[in-house]
Amino acid sequence: MSILLLNGPNLNLLGTREPHIYGADTLADVERHFAAEAVRLGTTAACFQSNHEGHLIDRIHAARLDGTRGIVINPGGLTHTSVALRDALAGVALPVVEVHISNVHKREEFRHHSYISGIADGVIAGLGIQGYEMALHYLVRKLAKAG
Amino acid sequence: MSILLLNGPNLNLLGTREPHIYGADTLADVERHFAAEAVRLGTTAACFQSNHEGHLIDRIHAARLDGTRGIVINPGGLTHTSVALRDALAGVALPVVEVHISNVHKREEFRHHSYISGIADGVIAGLGIQGYEMALHYLVRKLAKAG
Amino acid sequence: MSILLLNGPNLNLLGTREPHIYGADTLADVERHFAAEAVRLGTTAACFQSNHEGHLIDRIHAARLDGTRGIVINPGGLTHTSVALRDALAGVALPVVEVHISNVHKREEFRHHSYISGIADGVIAGLGIQGYEMALHYLVRKLAKAG
Amino acid sequence: MSILLLNGPNLNLLGTREPHIYGADTLADVERHFAAEAVRLGTTAACFQSNHEGHLIDRIHAARLDGTRGIVINPGGLTHTSVALRDALAGVALPVVEVHISNVHKREEFRHHSYISGIADGVIAGLGIQGYEMALHYLVRKLAKAG
Amino acid sequence: MSILLLNGPNLNLLGTREPHIYGADTLADVERHFAAEAVRLGTTAACFQSNHEGHLIDRIHAARLDGTRGIVINPGGLTHTSVALRDALAGVALPVVEVHISNVHKREEFRHHSYISGIADGVIAGLGIQGYEMALHYLVRKLAKAG
Amino acid sequence: MSILLLNGPNLNLLGTREPHIYGADTLADVERHFAAEAVRLGTTAACFQSNHEGHLIDRIHAARLDGTRGIVINPGGLTHTSVALRDALAGVALPVVEVHISNVHKREEFRHHSYISGIADGVIAGLGIQGYEMALHYLVRKLAKAG
Amino acid sequence: MSILLLNGPNLNLLGTREPHIYGADTLADVERHFAAEAVRLGTTAACFQSNHEGHLIDRIHAARLDGTRGIVINPGGLTHTSVALRDALAGVALPVVEVHISNVHKREEFRHHSYISGIADGVIAGLGIQGYEMALHYLVRKLAKAG
Amino acid sequence: MSILLLNGPNLNLLGTREPHIYGADTLADVERHFAAEAVRLGTTAACFQSNHEGHLIDRIHAARLDGTRGIVINPGGLTHTSVALRDALAGVALPVVEVHISNVHKREEFRHHSYISGIADGVIAGLGIQGYEMALHYLVRKLAKAG
Amino acid sequence: MSILLLNGPNLNLLGTREPHIYGADTLADVERHFAAEAVRLGTTAACFQSNHEGHLIDRIHAARLDGTRGIVINPGGLTHTSVALRDALAGVALPVVEVHISNVHKREEFRHHSYISGIADGVIAGLGIQGYEMALHYLVRKLAKAG
Amino acid sequence: MSILLLNGPNLNLLGTREPHIYGADTLADVERHFAAEAVRLGTTAACFQSNHEGHLIDRIHAARLDGTRGIVINPGGLTHTSVALRDALAGVALPVVEVHISNVHKREEFRHHSYISGIADGVIAGLGIQGYEMALHYLVRKLAKAG
Amino acid sequence: MSILLLNGPNLNLLGTREPHIYGADTLADVERHFAAEAVRLGTTAACFQSNHEGHLIDRIHAARLDGTRGIVINPGGLTHTSVALRDALAGVALPVVEVHISNVHKREEFRHHSYISGIADGVIAGLGIQGYEMALHYLVRKLAKAG
Amino acid sequence: MSILLLNGPNLNLLGTREPHIYGADTLADVERHFAAEAVRLGTTAACFQSNHEGHLIDRIHAARLDGTRGIVINPGGLTHTSVALRDALAGVALPVVEVHISNVHKREEFRHHSYISGIADGVIAGLGIQGYEMALHYLVRKLAKAG
Repeated sequence: MSILLLNGPNLNLLGTREPHIYGADTLADVERHFAAEAVRLGTTAACFQSNHEGHLIDRIHAARLDGTRGIVINPGGLTHTSVALRDALAGVALPVVEVHISNVHKREEFRHHSYISGIADGVIAGLGIQGYEMALHYLVRKLAKAG
Repeated sequence: MSILLLNGPNLNLLGTREPHIYGADTLADVERHFAAEAVRLGTTAACFQSNHEGHLIDRIHAARLDGTRGIVINPGGLTHTSVALRDALAGVALPVVEVHISNVHKREEFRHHSYISGIADGVIAGLGIQGYEMALHYLVRKLAKAG
Repeated sequence: MSILLLNGPNLNLLGTREPHIYGADTLADVERHFAAEAVRLGTTAACFQSNHEGHLIDRIHAARLDGTRGIVINPGGLTHTSVALRDALAGVALPVVEVHISNVHKREEFRHHSYISGIADGVIAGLGIQGYEMALHYLVRKLAKAG
Repeated sequence: MSILLLNGPNLNLLGTREPHIYGADTLADVERHFAAEAVRLGTTAACFQSNHEGHLIDRIHAARLDGTRGIVINPGGLTHTSVALRDALAGVALPVVEVHISNVHKREEFRHHSYISGIADGVIAGLGIQGYEMALHYLVRKLAKAG
Repeated sequence: MSILLLNGPNLNLLGTREPHIYGADTLADVERHFAAEAVRLGTTAACFQSNHEGHLIDRIHAARLDGTRGIVINPGGLTHTSVALRDALAGVALPVVEVHISNVHKREEFRHHSYISGIADGVIAGLGIQGYEMALHYLVRKLAKAG
Repeated sequence: MSILLLNGPNLNLLGTREPHIYGADTLADVERHFAAEAVRLGTTAACFQSNHEGHLIDRIHAARLDGTRGIVINPGGLTHTSVALRDALAGVALPVVEVHISNVHKREEFRHHSYISGIADGVIAGLGIQGYEMALHYLVRKLAKAG
Repeated sequence: MSILLLNGPNLNLLGTREPHIYGADTLADVERHFAAEAVRLGTTAACFQSNHEGHLIDRIHAARLDGTRGIVINPGGLTHTSVALRDALAGVALPVVEVHISNVHKREEFRHHSYISGIADGVIAGLGIQGYEMALHYLVRKLAKAG
Repeated sequence: MSILLLNGPNLNLLGTREPHIYGADTLADVERHFAAEAVRLGTTAACFQSNHEGHLIDRIHAARLDGTRGIVINPGGLTHTSVALRDALAGVALPVVEVHISNVHKREEFRHHSYISGIADGVIAGLGIQGYEMALHYLVRKLAKAG
Repeated sequence: MSILLLNGPNLNLLGTREPHIYGADTLADVERHFAAEAVRLGTTAACFQSNHEGHLIDRIHAARLDGTRGIVINPGGLTHTSVALRDALAGVALPVVEVHISNVHKREEFRHHSYISGIADGVIAGLGIQGYEMALHYLVRKLAKAG
Repeated sequence: MSILLLNGPNLNLLGTREPHIYGADTLADVERHFAAEAVRLGTTAACFQSNHEGHLIDRIHAARLDGTRGIVINPGGLTHTSVALRDALAGVALPVVEVHISNVHKREEFRHHSYISGIADGVIAGLGIQGYEMALHYLVRKLAKAG
Repeated sequence: MSILLLNGPNLNLLGTREPHIYGADTLADVERHFAAEAVRLGTTAACFQSNHEGHLIDRIHAARLDGTRGIVINPGGLTHTSVALRDALAGVALPVVEVHISNVHKREEFRHHSYISGIADGVIAGLGIQGYEMALHYLVRKLAKAG
Repeated sequence: MSILLLNGPNLNLLGTREPHIYGADTLADVERHFAAEAVRLGTTAACFQSNHEGHLIDRIHAARLDGTRGIVINPGGLTHTSVALRDALAGVALPVVEVHISNVHKREEFRHHSYISGIADGVIAGLGIQGYEMALHYLVRKLAKAG
């Protein structure tokens, strides 16, 4: 059993720009921390980032068969434009939590709509990289309840 | 120093209807758990619920002077209709986390817009009553960093 | 068993202004007539008016426990702006009939949308204070059928 | 003196489909009941149904000259699409009550707008076939007042 | 004869935050100045602030019977969301001037629409607390003309 | 060679209501006058009115084969709602002038759009029944030029 | 058992205009071909065309009782304007395929929306008169599967 | 007594471009013809063209005092953008007919709305330069009736 | 030091039409009164009216160099249509107060939006010609404070 | 000569989920059947599926040079979001048929718009995997006609 | 042969305000540089600026007869509001390049739409005063090609 | 130091279709010319084209570290749909010029909006392949100024 952490376009830049906003943690730090926390909670984590919509969809499809039990996804800019990503997540029928590091509701109008939220369990936005960990906690607790 | 937990209209009904959706926890349970967790994290919590927009605004104003350091708010139906509540929160200039128990993005179109998100640090939606605790953790960590 | 008659903001002014439009009946007259008709139909009526959204919500919540079997509501201006009132009515899961004395569809554009209609059994608009009595008849007949 | 009951497209199917929703009453039953109630109230009723917009308009025009004093109309699907029907009703300058058996506000978005409401005295929606009788009562009382 | 000064939600915070924008005058200062100016102009003033929509409506209703001749209102956030407040003002049929301290047209899109303007004599926005006094002058002069 | 004058729903009521607005001329008067003017201009006219969209379409189709050279049409309420009428006119490929007796641009918003204008040579609105004659003159002159 | 082929307003003109676009086949050709193909597939076909919305609705209602098992409909201009036609199709609860000879999505904006698609099994647009035959094949196969 | 013919921006180019569309008549021809026809009808005409909104407004104002009894105006591109021109026409309270040489409803979307139509007696569009003459006839007849 | 009073299109008609609404004061009266009041307040006023957008812009530009310290502007119909006027006011970087004699929010929808408000200090609407004087008072007080 | 069958994101999941809706046929089955049918009709087929917009575009470009004579495409979620895919199809100037297995018009609002339809010959939606075969038949017949 | 450089409202202020944004070049500098560059490229330039829409239109008309071969225009605020300017440019049928010094797409929403772009060869925005020179180069090269 | 030239989906087809519109230059020609011009201006150029959004984003990220000083991008169809591309460009914080060969404002409505313009220095559209060179000149001059 495993939780999949997906990060979409441009999140590979994490930690390398605007550290006063996003902190100094790189994506590698985030993924390392996420995996460690997963282990601490008695599960494991797989992490994947891509700037390619297609690779993200391929990775989500793979999750049907590799023991993945839940998905934490920060779709980056694809949040607002990708029906295909939504369909991929809906297609694998796993619980999904959508995470945004910044509060998208304070930014441009076009960032207020998400194609992902409608098929996710829930959404965490604006709480920084801590949002990833919260999503992990939610999924682990949910899966524990479901037995 | 204290964290204020605010619940808006109809959240007093928590636990008394649709337990298969919302769980069997009542608002009293939620508040008790929230306060205990606050203590565990080295702070304290004050809890307040009202069906009256005006009382919620009055309570937010009071938070300016009573040592409150952060606010967790589930504004219920006022989320989508109350500019006055938004202004009250903006007026006291404390960090705010907006919480929704259900995933508002899966519900009616009019629940997709929030007047509160634009002045909050962030939003947690759809993760059940666990969202309150997550918001608490976020605020405690943020305040700890700010020293 | 009882039917609850709720009147929202400004309906306390009934009968005191524009009698050529609304007739000379005051709210007290309307409520007295409603109660008498309820008795005539073999049930009873409770009547409540408030200019405060919160008090209306509190009163609706109370209806869960006091034997109320159905609600007739004229939400006044809150019709068009209150999601919290809608949620309160949905929360108590009683049959609801929405009544408007004037024909809201002949008035300003913003009066053409109601947050209440979507969770009501039905709507009566523009038939004057007679609409209250019609709503009462509907509920009594419905409850009679349901046994 | 007479009240005209008009039913638009597809209402001839009444009672023959989805009886758990609309009841087992056929259009014939509804019309018979309406006429009897009219007699009971000291007036008479004429009933007409058509799936043709043009026939409905012709019938409304005829009402100018045949002693009709008021119109109860359920325009069916034409409610949302027919300016011509609206103009016909406005043209004969008789009091009109618009009736819908189901609560159109709970259905598709395009059913929320009516071209008829703007020229009607009022609207009854969602109260089942009882709505026809209520409309009749309203008109009889109104005409009685007007002498 | 008297002029009623009404202030809506959050205006009790006046003078206690952002003094570089709003000045150092508190609501008490504003009300004292308003009352003094009223006296100087040969009339009197009553002042009322509430964060509760319902209380504001109750106060407006009371103005029908207490000799009030005109109303100066800053509805705060209710400006943009309260049909009930609009209806209350329309219901008492007194001349109304709507005042906003800041220029709402320079702020968020949702502040550009007012439910109050459509039933007011006029609007003053963005001229600071001086706007209250201007509104008072207008009403006194108008009432003087009307004799 | 002939010009076809078409009048849509409710125009049979012409002259029988609101003579202070529309004048005392009945549809028969209008048609008689139109036909006489056609003769005076060296052509002939056929006149047709119906409250039925289908009959109007049938009549337009017939115009393909009966020597009609141009169409003057006042589509009444169908102006704003009938794509089928537009398609019929486009299908017979004759010059069309759209006429409205009243100025539709001064009336309800929904009367500002016409499905017919996009396939007509031109539109005359608000010039009373004189508009019919003007349209006739235009068509005769156009056909004369075309030889 | 039979399949009903319905054609709406203006489709009687088929083959008589713009043969470079629609081909030289007349509606009679289309209907003859459709019926022959139905026989070839082991079923029968009934064909009906009208320019009158009401007649189309009447014909659809008749299909409830005459052994019709499926409907192929090209609603012409009514596609975009007739809720009544939609309701008639929904009322008889038969499988429906919507066909358009031309690609409506390449034409005027108002042709991009169909009231019929939402209650049809599916839609074929832009494939010429071949679309009718395809729809027939689909229905026959579907009905064969359903036994 | 006189009729004023006003032409707005770019109409001075008439006859010098696209003669296959607009004909070979120049603005001078149009004005000469208009004036002659006015004389023939027993009145006189003044003609004015400008590419300057301000000059057109000035000219309209002058019409209050120079015996003008009606205005025929082709506002050119200002049709769609000038509230000031509308206000000028409304300010002089003379009957106005709006004329467009081409059928604006066949052109770009932004040409479908006119600020002028709402304060004009009527509109003629798409009938070529003949529209000016028609408008003149209408005004002369109207003024004759008014005596 | 001086205050510039600008009036846009059609305001030269002031006092000559609808005196029951606008009063009997002409523009000359308004300007004379404004100038006198300016002197009374220890400053001076320059007044300018034009029906030409371009002249208003030229005049605003001139204000950069002629000692103008603030601008009171009633842009008339240009309020709703002129970005160029907005840019001119923004370009000279002087404090601006926008004045409307009537309450634009009670008039046509297109009068509810102003291109000027977004770059003005504030707006006064609906308070009659008294609004000019109020704007003057505001500017004088503001400039006095700024020293 | 060959027909290209393209399937977009998530269509590789065909047959592996929701077989009660989509049937048990996998994408491999669909492609095998399509190719066999192509041979039966005297042509050949090439099949390609990708979750990557870029690969689909590359494949479309290749079709310019490899003898492809027509394209059948089910763009999946890219239907509603990809202008680049539309441009690729338009760029190779081959006949295109757009296919959707489900009836997109019965699903979420955002699935009602397609960027592809505007450059396709036609669209088949909601007829299951049979739609692919129908599209193939259409293209073969079209190409046969074109010789 | 000559290129015409047109600058609209407020561009006469160039170089006199916000030099950190627009640079220190005045309009005179820009025009001198433009003319010199034109000579260097073997053509000549005429330059014209006005704050008056009408004068700009007059100047454009004059370009039909004075040997102008192309137009570079920065319409300033008229970009977003002037159909008349668009029509003037379309009327003279010369190649046009639209230039904006700042990037209008980064500014207010109402600056994102241009009435000019639809009839221009192209648009250059945000590249500072260098945009004028680029537009000149484009026109010279285009005219050279056209011979 | 180097300038990066990026071309998005379908621009690899340049020169191979519609040469009467786009000219006979292939993408290779464009890139060769761009690189040569860069050298002529004392800098160098790197060129990259892809039909894959992800590859374009990867390439942009690489530009942070490879000495790129500015980016010229023609995003093709991604212009209108890709927030991820916008975020990538914003993420590397280099000056960007957006180029379109055709005038997108003359094409379909959906091409009028660009996600890129809001984060670019500026935009050149409709000036053919010359636009690339202009963008290069702008960047070189800008970088030269910045030293």
